[in-house]
Amino acid sequence: MEQRISIVTLGVADLARSTRFYEALGWQGQEMQETVFFQAGGQAVVLWGREKVAQDVGIADDGSGFGGIALAQNVRSREEVDAVIAAARAAGATVTKEPAETFYGGYAGYFLDPDGHAWEVAHNPHWTLAEDGSVSL
Amino acid sequence: MEQRISIVTLGVADLARSTRFYEALGWQGQEMQETVFFQAGGQAVVLWGREKVAQDVGIADDGSGFGGIALAQNVRSREEVDAVIAAARAAGATVTKEPAETFYGGYAGYFLDPDGHAWEVAHNPHWTLAEDGSVSL
Repeated sequence: MEQRISIVTLGVADLARSTRFYEALGWQGQEMQETVFFQAGGQAVVLWGREKVAQDVGIADDGSGFGGIALAQNVRSREEVDAVIAAARAAGATVTKEPAETFYGGYAGYFLDPDGHAWEVAHNPHWTLAEDGSVSL
Repeated sequence: MEQRISIVTLGVADLARSTRFYEALGWQGQEMQETVFFQAGGQAVVLWGREKVAQDVGIADDGSGFGGIALAQNVRSREEVDAVIAAARAAGATVTKEPAETFYGGYAGYFLDPDGHAWEVAHNPHWTLAEDGSVSL
């Protein structure tokens, strides 16, 4: 698994309120399908409904551990998604979502690290991944 | 506030266990003072005791909202720390730690966004910040 984060997704209760907050700080994003994407250096910061994040990770948001944030690493192929999820499982991770087709035409799985921090490993054919792994919206 | 994250700090229950996990995935980090730093593209991923993260943010880890992750933006001067914390307050953030000297000789404050996601704004004289805001350990 490469040593980088492509996306930090912040689960939010009210997308409009959170978008206004980051815009008030000077950030500029793009909204698509009730999701707001901010380019942040070579990665993306995403605002998305907290319940949708939990559902996407494949865990309950019942106070038993989900902290409302998901990390993602975008990789170069579906095979790499499978390989990273397999490596995480071998390292002792809990795989909460086996790699599968996503609603946006990609392929992704999720694992939790030993402290329950959620990582998505995704191949998104619509996103450009640079040589160094950085992403451009 | 610039549109970037310098550090993603993952609060952990057992630093050795979590370090082994990320090393098993092929990551290579450096441990200093019970903290493990991984260079991850132009940012850093840090493993640190969860209770220390909560204490640093200035909030209780009592299940009432802290998710175990803190984001940080490193800035170029102490004045910029003050300015970003002031901007966050003006945008409606809860400032959990007023800018102050840190134990490592820096200067930092913390705010919570509308969903309680914790942001540190820090000036660390020991870290190199590139023109584009990326950090190098």
